[in-house]
Amino acid sequence: MAENKFVYFFGDNQTDGNGSMKDLLGGKGANLAEMANLGVPVPPGFTITTQVCVYYLEHGKYPSGLLQQINDAIKKLEKINNKKFGDSHNPLLLSVRSGAKASMPGMMDTVLNLGLNDESVKGLARKTDNPRFAYDSYRRFLAMFGDVVLGIDHDEFEAMIESKKKELGIKLDTELDIDALKELVESFKQIIEKNIGKKFTQDPREHLQMAIDAVFSSWNNQRAITYRKLHDIPHDWGTAVNIQTMVYGNMGDTSGTGVAFTRDPGTGEKKYFGEYLINAQGEDVVAGIRTPQSIETLEEAMPHVYDQLVEIFTRLEQHFKDMQDIEFTIEEGKLYILQTRTGKRTAAATIKIAVDMVEEKLIDKRTAILRVEPKHVDQMLHPMIKPGSEYKVIARGLAASPGAAVGKVVFTAEHAEEMKKNSEKVIMVRTETSPEDIGGMHAAEGILTVRGGMTSHAAVVARGMGKPCVAGCDDITIDIDDACFMAGEYTIKEGDYISIDGTSGNVIAGKVELAVPGVNKDLETILEWSDGIRKLRIRTNADTPQDAAIAYEFGAEGIGLCRTEHMFFGEDRIPVVREMIMAEDENERREALSKLLPMQKEDFIGIFKAMKEYPVTIRLLDPPLHEFLPRLEELEAKLAKLQYGNDNKKEIEKVKKLIERVEAVKEINPMLGHRGCRLGITYPEIYEMQVQAIFEAACELMSENVTVVPEIMIPLISDAKELSLIRNEVKEIAEKTMDNTSTRIDYLIGTMIELPRAAITADKIAQHAEFFSFGTNDLTQTTFGFSRDDAGKFLPLYIDKEILEMDPFVVLDQEGVGELIKMGITKGRSTNPDLKVGICGEHGGEPKSIKFGYVSGLDYVSCSPYRIPIARLAAAQAVLENGDDIKND
Amino acid sequence: MAENKFVYFFGDNQTDGNGSMKDLLGGKGANLAEMANLGVPVPPGFTITTQVCVYYLEHGKYPSGLLQQINDAIKKLEKINNKKFGDSHNPLLLSVRSGAKASMPGMMDTVLNLGLNDESVKGLARKTDNPRFAYDSYRRFLAMFGDVVLGIDHDEFEAMIESKKKELGIKLDTELDIDALKELVESFKQIIEKNIGKKFTQDPREHLQMAIDAVFSSWNNQRAITYRKLHDIPHDWGTAVNIQTMVYGNMGDTSGTGVAFTRDPGTGEKKYFGEYLINAQGEDVVAGIRTPQSIETLEEAMPHVYDQLVEIFTRLEQHFKDMQDIEFTIEEGKLYILQTRTGKRTAAATIKIAVDMVEEKLIDKRTAILRVEPKHVDQMLHPMIKPGSEYKVIARGLAASPGAAVGKVVFTAEHAEEMKKNSEKVIMVRTETSPEDIGGMHAAEGILTVRGGMTSHAAVVARGMGKPCVAGCDDITIDIDDACFMAGEYTIKEGDYISIDGTSGNVIAGKVELAVPGVNKDLETILEWSDGIRKLRIRTNADTPQDAAIAYEFGAEGIGLCRTEHMFFGEDRIPVVREMIMAEDENERREALSKLLPMQKEDFIGIFKAMKEYPVTIRLLDPPLHEFLPRLEELEAKLAKLQYGNDNKKEIEKVKKLIERVEAVKEINPMLGHRGCRLGITYPEIYEMQVQAIFEAACELMSENVTVVPEIMIPLISDAKELSLIRNEVKEIAEKTMDNTSTRIDYLIGTMIELPRAAITADKIAQHAEFFSFGTNDLTQTTFGFSRDDAGKFLPLYIDKEILEMDPFVVLDQEGVGELIKMGITKGRSTNPDLKVGICGEHGGEPKSIKFGYVSGLDYVSCSPYRIPIARLAAAQAVLENGDDIKND
Repeated sequence: MAENKFVYFFGDNQTDGNGSMKDLLGGKGANLAEMANLGVPVPPGFTITTQVCVYYLEHGKYPSGLLQQINDAIKKLEKINNKKFGDSHNPLLLSVRSGAKASMPGMMDTVLNLGLNDESVKGLARKTDNPRFAYDSYRRFLAMFGDVVLGIDHDEFEAMIESKKKELGIKLDTELDIDALKELVESFKQIIEKNIGKKFTQDPREHLQMAIDAVFSSWNNQRAITYRKLHDIPHDWGTAVNIQTMVYGNMGDTSGTGVAFTRDPGTGEKKYFGEYLINAQGEDVVAGIRTPQSIETLEEAMPHVYDQLVEIFTRLEQHFKDMQDIEFTIEEGKLYILQTRTGKRTAAATIKIAVDMVEEKLIDKRTAILRVEPKHVDQMLHPMIKPGSEYKVIARGLAASPGAAVGKVVFTAEHAEEMKKNSEKVIMVRTETSPEDIGGMHAAEGILTVRGGMTSHAAVVARGMGKPCVAGCDDITIDIDDACFMAGEYTIKEGDYISIDGTSGNVIAGKVELAVPGVNKDLETILEWSDGIRKLRIRTNADTPQDAAIAYEFGAEGIGLCRTEHMFFGEDRIPVVREMIMAEDENERREALSKLLPMQKEDFIGIFKAMKEYPVTIRLLDPPLHEFLPRLEELEAKLAKLQYGNDNKKEIEKVKKLIERVEAVKEINPMLGHRGCRLGITYPEIYEMQVQAIFEAACELMSENVTVVPEIMIPLISDAKELSLIRNEVKEIAEKTMDNTSTRIDYLIGTMIELPRAAITADKIAQHAEFFSFGTNDLTQTTFGFSRDDAGKFLPLYIDKEILEMDPFVVLDQEGVGELIKMGITKGRSTNPDLKVGICGEHGGEPKSIKFGYVSGLDYVSCSPYRIPIARLAAAQAVLENGDDIKND
Repeated sequence: MAENKFVYFFGDNQTDGNGSMKDLLGGKGANLAEMANLGVPVPPGFTITTQVCVYYLEHGKYPSGLLQQINDAIKKLEKINNKKFGDSHNPLLLSVRSGAKASMPGMMDTVLNLGLNDESVKGLARKTDNPRFAYDSYRRFLAMFGDVVLGIDHDEFEAMIESKKKELGIKLDTELDIDALKELVESFKQIIEKNIGKKFTQDPREHLQMAIDAVFSSWNNQRAITYRKLHDIPHDWGTAVNIQTMVYGNMGDTSGTGVAFTRDPGTGEKKYFGEYLINAQGEDVVAGIRTPQSIETLEEAMPHVYDQLVEIFTRLEQHFKDMQDIEFTIEEGKLYILQTRTGKRTAAATIKIAVDMVEEKLIDKRTAILRVEPKHVDQMLHPMIKPGSEYKVIARGLAASPGAAVGKVVFTAEHAEEMKKNSEKVIMVRTETSPEDIGGMHAAEGILTVRGGMTSHAAVVARGMGKPCVAGCDDITIDIDDACFMAGEYTIKEGDYISIDGTSGNVIAGKVELAVPGVNKDLETILEWSDGIRKLRIRTNADTPQDAAIAYEFGAEGIGLCRTEHMFFGEDRIPVVREMIMAEDENERREALSKLLPMQKEDFIGIFKAMKEYPVTIRLLDPPLHEFLPRLEELEAKLAKLQYGNDNKKEIEKVKKLIERVEAVKEINPMLGHRGCRLGITYPEIYEMQVQAIFEAACELMSENVTVVPEIMIPLISDAKELSLIRNEVKEIAEKTMDNTSTRIDYLIGTMIELPRAAITADKIAQHAEFFSFGTNDLTQTTFGFSRDDAGKFLPLYIDKEILEMDPFVVLDQEGVGELIKMGITKGRSTNPDLKVGICGEHGGEPKSIKFGYVSGLDYVSCSPYRIPIARLAAAQAVLENGDDIKND
């Protein structure tokens, strides 16, 4: 070993290490040294370096000199504490803990009260004047040492305690008296003797060495190795060992213990927040037998300690530049800080603290932005179950659209709309939803479905509406005949209250209380700062003027995806759409389309207006035509009844004809069928009508001096020739329409890249496109060969078995789909350097995917209105995490 | 212009050019020069080079010196022929033709008899003593010149002839007498005058120059430009002009004209084959007024000419090293060869000639192999409509499985099987086929379906069975109620005879006569030679011992794809399979599987035996489970009837339960659903049973000293973790089964690469695979986003509109799918250099795709049994076309 310094002392102005030495001292050791250096009173101790561990594991022995250094360190501790290790009068007690560079569950945790034996326990009893405390500490030491150092099953010790309590007729450990504890100590020593086959040694130095060995060896136990493999932690790091003086808050009325936050973790307000107990140990706070007091009262109880604490709070917050969660112990009037760490906090607090600290000049904006997690923004925008509520989770599904909702169960869209009219709140529960359910989904507070994944119809529409949704919840079974659903032992009837939490996927019996933080001034500040940094433009997926207006309010800079087919499902339109589909020839089809034209035109006028002068990307008709027709099964059942019932012939003929048409357009795999640009190629008159409607709308607005920037997007392109063909047709209609009104409008023509072949041949396609928009939903479906509607049958198991880390319909699969996106961008720009590139799948609003998109070279992302604030933040973080704000300075 | 030689003379020992000068002289000019060099008596003439064309088109004028060179060349011709150009006594007549490097329709074709005018026609009449011939030639010249040089509508001349014939009350052009022809000459000159606005010049030199101009200009007419664009012919090549002495076979009884092949184009036999007419022109042979005589009779009629002809036949065949199709004219006892070209021939002749010529040492094996087209082999293997038959095509569909078949129409599989029992031949006509129709397909001579593409169920199964199939024939409509189908005006009733031609896609009313060439000695020779050259291994896709045996006979070197699910459809199995699917839990499922185990084991024993000691790749269960259940629509209709009819409750409950299960497993996009390895992951016990059956079968055979090489193939992998998980399970079962019988078997585990993500992440997947097999059917579906079952709605239009050159389910799409294959191979071998790679989609038997596969680095292809001979040939051609046989010498 090159380095001969194996032991780093900390505390009492003798600290050898510091916070930057995590490689050598581990995270815990470095942090203790850092606090000691800051003058924070940590219980003094020392750290044995990770290098020793590596040496020990390699050679099976300690490096020479180590024991001497340990002895020297213990001597220092004895001097500082004025106690002696293993002494029968005034014993020095130690804790021993492992501490690798990264926090690593699976390794040896902690041995407390090391230094106790049959003699020193008596000294402790005398010194503290508290024999019960001393023997209680001793029996705890024996059990802990037996368990973590000697590997004896913890249950053996527990069983012994239980049998003792039974014998004494008591229930709580705290009721064990001094005699019982002494008997337990003896029994525990016997358990150890039985297990190790010899008497338990009484030498604390031997205990210490065994504990150190145990820490080192725990580096290579199976759980630790597995953990390192899973988290890519190198096996050659080794762990450090931290040996620290025990301090006690239960040594009388000038002792105590507590926990405090430097700011309010609930609200973020700048005030100390915490509680403490006089004459108590940490465990007592947890046990909850006594009620802790608020931290403010300490000012009166121990003004000196309180002042010292406040000063330390300030120092630690200044030093770590974040709100701290601090554990402290007061031993006979002397304050010790046991731990400080960044405190957990609510979304609102995270945002407020970040903004406040910028104003206090503690951190810069870049740090503030990076500190807010996108999920915090999400939490601010959706109702949540009030923290601290108690409730009964009866089933779990996919967390498909965030937020919580409460309402009465209904099973049909009609029923939902009816109840809504009577001002009743409802949760719509369906096997799956279809476009016909839109009205009911609007009326409902939230949606619960049995089938379907993260991008099922219910999930997509709910997110678009900003409504909570739990999807694919196959824990429940709907029984329509009895108007109820079953969830395990529970039966929930129509009209019963349930609550759903679309953030967690929980389905809850009865009502819960909700809270909505909402967008506040602090969040607005963070988002404004983000806007100043981000380079990605943020657009929205919106199909109606209402959605567009919401998105505009949230900060959308245009529409990235306006799905024209959603307009076809309106009550007044669907009959005309069906007329168009049932048409016998092009003429009949054109007639039906001419009725749709003015409706589509009105739609576009509304959307253009809502988006002010931002660009609006309109995707021409995409879904297969059968989506607009009734279901075949329904029709066949109807026909069977009609025929059996000898009903009138005319009706039968009508149903037969409809069945014929449904049969003719039905498909085995509609996802891969006659849809997208394939419709535009086989029925050019449909796209013709849509383009005419777009340009008539745009021209009308231009004449009212509203600037409109339409971007026509052609879906499902697999070959450049498809695009060039449709592009020419679109241009022809566009020019003709503009000529008719003598108006000129700047417009773009582009395409979705949503099939692998489009990405692979993007160089050819880009020659006919001004923009690409990656349709990552469909691209994920085709790249994986996963139908988003059917993947619910195996995807959950895939996540469980860790075949996939995440649902690729939620978080973009960078390894597969991402490769195609990068290929598409590179190839596309190779032939068309001005190509504008975006994403408009569900991934456009998912932070990890947004960050990937930024690195891949996207110009914009487009997401549902309620995801816009998250996208703004994530886009800024992408710049910061790549250091692109600094590079450009 | 660098080169000052613009004119290349040919004929009569003065030939300037040769066959290699296609760039300069065009294809026709170089070929004429080549023949002249060989001493073949071609009518002498000269070629104006392509460089002149390029110069003329650029500068709008001839390069200086050209006219002089043309005049010199004409003088030579005058001298050789002892005639004078434009002379009124003994005029030299010329033909003028274009001739680019590549044959190019769209350009100016031919002007004959140039040199005639009002004076020289008289000389011709006198000289030939045949005024009718002279004036007929003159009026033809005027019309041809007017049409192709002056751009006058050909119909104007035709209309004039028609009106003249009407006036004279005659029907045929040959009935026009000398006066009528003279009148026509005058009328034609008037037509020209009217069109060009001036008198038609009488100067043959001016005619020649105008004809040359017209040839040059025709290079840039729209049709020629379009043709070049479509065929990637550079626009800067230019065309040459060929000017050649006219010769006449109609100058009396020592003149004649004929066509001959150097071998029999029907059988390939080595004997001359052709016919001729004395005192006739080529047109007369075509007109069919006189019956031509067989070429052998010429030996008696003109022994000298015949000897000369035979000598030329031999010389040309020796020179061009292929059977020649030769046009000749005898002008007053003097033989002229007008054209020689490689003769078209039947499949059988192609193969016989290739083999014979190798034996004659005229060509080498490599040339012989390259000369046989894969489609020739196909034609040998399937019945075809006897050449020369007449029949009525009533509809057209996709040429889904080659060969022709005749039989009575049936509409159900049951009916087909019934009729087969009575030894009746049937054609099964269905909207589409499903696995339940297999029995009927076996019984039928051929299959005709209304829906479905080249890889629909009907097409795939028919090809596998080697039965003719016309698929996706939406020209016909089936009316099940009236037991007939309609095709345009035709109504074909059940029991009527039809014929189908799966090679052309034709549906024919009534019976046609069939012929099957079959595999003969010559084909076997070609295939054996191919085997010696090819580097790709050829395997077969076979699911039954019967198929395996056929494939073995055809030369398969193993099974590349054995689809275990096809074994599940047997009459005795389907109830057990349904039992397995209906199982409530794993135990019930295992119970059903245990019944399937011995059946699967028997299947595998049969297949292993049929394949002798070749490897057998067995794909574990792939299709979604609902394929094994009845259709939902059927069940719902049944239920509706049962309920309405108040039928017994028990039956209703049974149907209800079945519906429930069908509902539970039904999918919106089954292609992208719960299938392939996803089944193996959710129900490990299914794969477990299959692997156990495979190894029990293999072990049993090993104990009988039959060597078995099983290769376990996992379908539909999208991520390496899926494969590693299943691989471990497969190994475990395999080891356990082998241990149980104390047998050791070498086996491989590999995967299908049939999803884009698998190709993209092939480097990771290859770490868990010993082989990859590209499932190009599914890979094409996902790469394009085309469902093969539904693409029939738009794919034909895509081919029509030239969006796609070919159906990508037939010919592998190299640009998209091919890129993924190359990526998959490269990435796969990057982490696993020993990886064995093949293709097992339908493309494995398609020659273009096989050649692409070879270049991409495949180790083998696997195709249906009847494609094996084609694949063997194509694989050899791949080596030869890449010159890899030479490189390795």
